[in-house]
Amino acid sequence: MAKAEKYRLAQIVERFGGEILGDPQTSISQVATLESAGARHIGFLAHSKYNELLAGTRAGAVILGRADSGLTKLTRIVCDDPYLYFAKVSALFNPPQTVTPGVHKTAVVERGTTVPASASIGAGAYVGRRVKLGTGVVIGAGCHLGDGVEIGAASRLYPRVTIYPGCRLGQRVLVHSGAVIGADGFGIVLDNGIWRKIPQLGRVMIGNDVEIGANTCIDRGALGDTVVEDGVKLDNLIQIAHNVHIGAHTAIAGCVGIAGSTRIGKHCMIGGGVGIVGHLDIADRVIIHGGAVVTKSIRKAGTYGGHPAEDSRSWTRNMARLRHLDTLRERIRQIEQQLSLPEEKA
Amino acid sequence: MAKAEKYRLAQIVERFGGEILGDPQTSISQVATLESAGARHIGFLAHSKYNELLAGTRAGAVILGRADSGLTKLTRIVCDDPYLYFAKVSALFNPPQTVTPGVHKTAVVERGTTVPASASIGAGAYVGRRVKLGTGVVIGAGCHLGDGVEIGAASRLYPRVTIYPGCRLGQRVLVHSGAVIGADGFGIVLDNGIWRKIPQLGRVMIGNDVEIGANTCIDRGALGDTVVEDGVKLDNLIQIAHNVHIGAHTAIAGCVGIAGSTRIGKHCMIGGGVGIVGHLDIADRVIIHGGAVVTKSIRKAGTYGGHPAEDSRSWTRNMARLRHLDTLRERIRQIEQQLSLPEEKA
Amino acid sequence: MAKAEKYRLAQIVERFGGEILGDPQTSISQVATLESAGARHIGFLAHSKYNELLAGTRAGAVILGRADSGLTKLTRIVCDDPYLYFAKVSALFNPPQTVTPGVHKTAVVERGTTVPASASIGAGAYVGRRVKLGTGVVIGAGCHLGDGVEIGAASRLYPRVTIYPGCRLGQRVLVHSGAVIGADGFGIVLDNGIWRKIPQLGRVMIGNDVEIGANTCIDRGALGDTVVEDGVKLDNLIQIAHNVHIGAHTAIAGCVGIAGSTRIGKHCMIGGGVGIVGHLDIADRVIIHGGAVVTKSIRKAGTYGGHPAEDSRSWTRNMARLRHLDTLRERIRQIEQQLSLPEEKA
Repeated sequence: MAKAEKYRLAQIVERFGGEILGDPQTSISQVATLESAGARHIGFLAHSKYNELLAGTRAGAVILGRADSGLTKLTRIVCDDPYLYFAKVSALFNPPQTVTPGVHKTAVVERGTTVPASASIGAGAYVGRRVKLGTGVVIGAGCHLGDGVEIGAASRLYPRVTIYPGCRLGQRVLVHSGAVIGADGFGIVLDNGIWRKIPQLGRVMIGNDVEIGANTCIDRGALGDTVVEDGVKLDNLIQIAHNVHIGAHTAIAGCVGIAGSTRIGKHCMIGGGVGIVGHLDIADRVIIHGGAVVTKSIRKAGTYGGHPAEDSRSWTRNMARLRHLDTLRERIRQIEQQLSLPEEKA
Repeated sequence: MAKAEKYRLAQIVERFGGEILGDPQTSISQVATLESAGARHIGFLAHSKYNELLAGTRAGAVILGRADSGLTKLTRIVCDDPYLYFAKVSALFNPPQTVTPGVHKTAVVERGTTVPASASIGAGAYVGRRVKLGTGVVIGAGCHLGDGVEIGAASRLYPRVTIYPGCRLGQRVLVHSGAVIGADGFGIVLDNGIWRKIPQLGRVMIGNDVEIGANTCIDRGALGDTVVEDGVKLDNLIQIAHNVHIGAHTAIAGCVGIAGSTRIGKHCMIGGGVGIVGHLDIADRVIIHGGAVVTKSIRKAGTYGGHPAEDSRSWTRNMARLRHLDTLRERIRQIEQQLSLPEEKA
Repeated sequence: MAKAEKYRLAQIVERFGGEILGDPQTSISQVATLESAGARHIGFLAHSKYNELLAGTRAGAVILGRADSGLTKLTRIVCDDPYLYFAKVSALFNPPQTVTPGVHKTAVVERGTTVPASASIGAGAYVGRRVKLGTGVVIGAGCHLGDGVEIGAASRLYPRVTIYPGCRLGQRVLVHSGAVIGADGFGIVLDNGIWRKIPQLGRVMIGNDVEIGANTCIDRGALGDTVVEDGVKLDNLIQIAHNVHIGAHTAIAGCVGIAGSTRIGKHCMIGGGVGIVGHLDIADRVIIHGGAVVTKSIRKAGTYGGHPAEDSRSWTRNMARLRHLDTLRERIRQIEQQLSLPEEKA
């Protein structure tokens, strides 16, 4: 989408390492899939199951892992991790779009807030009182920033994001359209059969380099804060309840719900649609399969899945067991026949 | 909601077929449930379990299937598919509300975009550069259309919809409030424990006659496009990840999540809350029960469910097996008694 | 967040009951967690598993249940339900923020709508024709109220809420950012393989004292209305389909989906991520565990869970059975050995 510059392969390996097989002067102007690539494009092979695409590609060059370097005679860059290498090359060709600084004439900025000259406030956006905006911040059209919000340098809010009062985002944070940060947590208590609301007094504190997907919700804390540490990546339509704490560099796929006060460790990977009940502790480096329902704390790094979630091995075994029940039933029937026991009807 | 015109039953069967039993001059001005209908209303019976409602209704006429035509002496239209017939009659009485064309004075339309005279741009809406709008398009209040977006004729965006740059919608597309089309896909790759973002360079391409529910998200492709073919119907709060391809005339209920690069066939029906993992192929005419988690490709038309999903028959059998485990346990206990084996404690 | 007034413990027990152990003149200005509390704060102990926090707290006073009154020598209020008591005290110190009445100069209010002098309409909000607003209503920035909407006194919409035409909210209703009320239900019917839209003619009717979470969707009825009775509390990212009826004082956690025409009783509690299929009846006082998939009506008060959902006891038993399958298999193997039957391979 951004207009890409050209680079020679020699310039690319100078930046990112790897080894060129073929002409280092090959000029590339964009990344592409092997299927759609032309002479000016560089493609990549991240998994050997796509090998057959190599034969048909018209890419000017390809990125390959060391083990796959012999699969083609095309001009290529050979490296340790071709998908990561591709990501770096793609980021080189596709830097974030620059946004013209300035406050749109239809935006509203309340008193007590200073907008840095390098920042951009889009059409119809609302910025409350005493809001602190870092240099180069981009606030998309129709965004709403409550009083006292803080947004670190080089962060970008896409259109129609809501940040409730008092919440803080670090630097280089990306927030996609429709996300709601800092709404009241679901804090209610029964009073003779009637739900009484508990004031939600905490904030949402978001670290640096966090990405937050479209229509994702992160509730403010009840007393303390809800915390999302540095480098966390959240997909779309995720629900993070009050006082949840998400450790640095954890990635969470779409449609996940995490109930109140649960702590997720660092470097975790949580698959799509997972539900995690409240007040649990999930250790660092835990991987949870999509669709799992986590009902107990997970104290050890590892891979977990199922409903309720257990470590992957038990879960797979249980599923297999279920499928073998017919076999068990048949064996019992045969024993009963041999013993002339009356067969039970299912 | 729209003010409905009157039609005589004779006029209705002239349009939609079916057979009148009773007075063809009966005048009808609106559809209604059997319970709430009055003399000017036409009701319908779509399922024989609601038979008893026929006795009490005060509807001026009812729509019935051929097998049910004798259940009442009321004036009635007898037809093959009473629910479909009702839908047609309801659409006749309740055409889409017309919207006055024009650009609201608080809307922002950037240079390079021409708004057709027949189109309507609501209050506070933002329309970027080089946007192409078909005739009769309605852009609701507070919508956001990024640069280069294309919207086909007679499409309608309800208030507060976001379309990211470069995405295309066909003709007669309806998008409900809060939907986000074209946000970045969840493309990240590990670089020494740190997630690195992969630029999302594709678009979202949506066909004709598609409906997209409230707060549903459809991410743009990573390299190629995310595609939603003609006639697809998406309910609310659905997540469609990057590079998903949804075949024509597939219907997907609320809260479904479809992970990246999965291909769904044509004429599928996917129940509420289903999760489908990435890089799968789902054949045409597949029906998936609500709540299923689909972890493998489905190569054959049919009905599937469960977690992990399997064909419906296996799934139902497994659930039944689980419930009969106590019976199995008891049979083993009896065998053990007879053999005087030591009984194991559970 | 709001600046809190000071209260003496004696004033607090005068309002809410309970018994002071220690100095009734102790002055308190805010609630806090036991860990973060200082001399001017009151903390609480709701569960004895947090007992050890009592020893370390620097709170000026604490709220305790009668059984725990001896656990500390700190100044304390002893009462029947310390969590409820805390909620009341917190509400005393943190009343809802007052909003300055008036219509923001960038808001749009259509003809035929009168805004009460006590009401507030935020920046960029849109209020359609013939909208009825009660006294003290707060409509947040960027909200959209369709024609004929009614909002009862003292209700508050946070920024960026959409209410489709004709929907009604009662008094003291709170709606969080991004919620969409009254979008079309997912009403479609097959016509020779093509989905035909059924006009959605009903409304959404919401009672008094309801709270609706961020990005939650409540669809309008197809013929009759979708109804949410008094005192219902809905968390974030919930999908309520057309013609659902939710009984008074029911609480529903995040990411729940309820399909069309299902009736939920009064005083129910539905855990996070639950899916409930359409056309079911759920009795009063039903509790459903997080992650359950409810496929049949529930006729009796009680606790339910699982996929498909069953009463909690059966569900727990089934899960245990699954885990004990290996034991069963081993017992069969031993019997077979004793009988010299050929052992089946798994």
